[in-house]
Amino acid sequence: MPRGKESDLAEHTVATREAYRGAFLDVRDDTVRLPDGSAAKREWIRHPGAVMIIPVLDDGDLVMERQYRYPLERDFIEFPAGKIDPGETPLATGQRELFEETGYQGGRWRHLTTVHPVISYSNERIEIYLAEGVVSEGRRALDEGEFLEVFTVGLPQALEWLEQGLITDTKTVIGLLWLDRLRMRRA
Amino acid sequence: MPRGKESDLAEHTVATREAYRGAFLDVRDDTVRLPDGSAAKREWIRHPGAVMIIPVLDDGDLVMERQYRYPLERDFIEFPAGKIDPGETPLATGQRELFEETGYQGGRWRHLTTVHPVISYSNERIEIYLAEGVVSEGRRALDEGEFLEVFTVGLPQALEWLEQGLITDTKTVIGLLWLDRLRMRRA
Repeated sequence: MPRGKESDLAEHTVATREAYRGAFLDVRDDTVRLPDGSAAKREWIRHPGAVMIIPVLDDGDLVMERQYRYPLERDFIEFPAGKIDPGETPLATGQRELFEETGYQGGRWRHLTTVHPVISYSNERIEIYLAEGVVSEGRRALDEGEFLEVFTVGLPQALEWLEQGLITDTKTVIGLLWLDRLRMRRA
Repeated sequence: MPRGKESDLAEHTVATREAYRGAFLDVRDDTVRLPDGSAAKREWIRHPGAVMIIPVLDDGDLVMERQYRYPLERDFIEFPAGKIDPGETPLATGQRELFEETGYQGGRWRHLTTVHPVISYSNERIEIYLAEGVVSEGRRALDEGEFLEVFTVGLPQALEWLEQGLITDTKTVIGLLWLDRLRMRRA
């Protein structure tokens, strides 16, 4: 059922304009031609892409973060992640963000998968890396105005939080479930 | 490590304004006070919430969709989903969207979990329902300008597509991995 890029359902751009440009959000307002020839509007956010890291210690525990997320007015438990800077490779973003946010570095890095969190209104993609054997000397380098708590936890405990509804960030949920499948396959 | 709503990392709203109001996107531009007392800007999208349905036939196969997603300029394989209308319960949204998009209805419905796809710039939440034993009489009721293809597929095939990188929509990835865990537990 998966198809290539030349889709029979494709929508073709007729006009595109910048609807809003803030410090962080870049909103586009496009007019498209639908498969039946009629016109429609498509509003969407242009995003540079992001990287999420699943950092694993030598004993198998995970490095995670607790961070306040303003749009939802509460803390979230997450894996480290951040936006790709212009000209940066996703691997470099991952290694930079992991060190900045948590102080962990090194280890064996492997690209696991790419996911899309907001397909109806953003072109954001998230590259997910597994980083096994990371180490820390206790320093980190948070951006100004960035506040987050770093902790380590075993996968079974994190999966329990997931099933209790205490971990709900989609990228983090996917990271935990993906890692669980990998470990079951190795076992 | 999970904490309650009264977070030590909380950001308090100092000012809030409408930055952009389109046909679809509602962008807020807020000023907040950070935990150290300094000020910062927070741009985010106000969203009414959405519902995703994992529709399962009596033989265990899944009802899925192929849909073109304009921001990413390609087709995606997804579970049926849609936005919650004003005053509508999530269960009613799920039953309405499933019928409109696929023609399937009925069955035994169960809320599985709630996830948040865009915690850094949207308050969107997605309520995920499992709907087992759905049936179709072959009609559906697509919204005007909505084009999508409906098909059925077994979970093993869908998981294979997932591992091949052919299914990358985060809500759909979570639905498949969650269902796989449920079935393994029952087996």
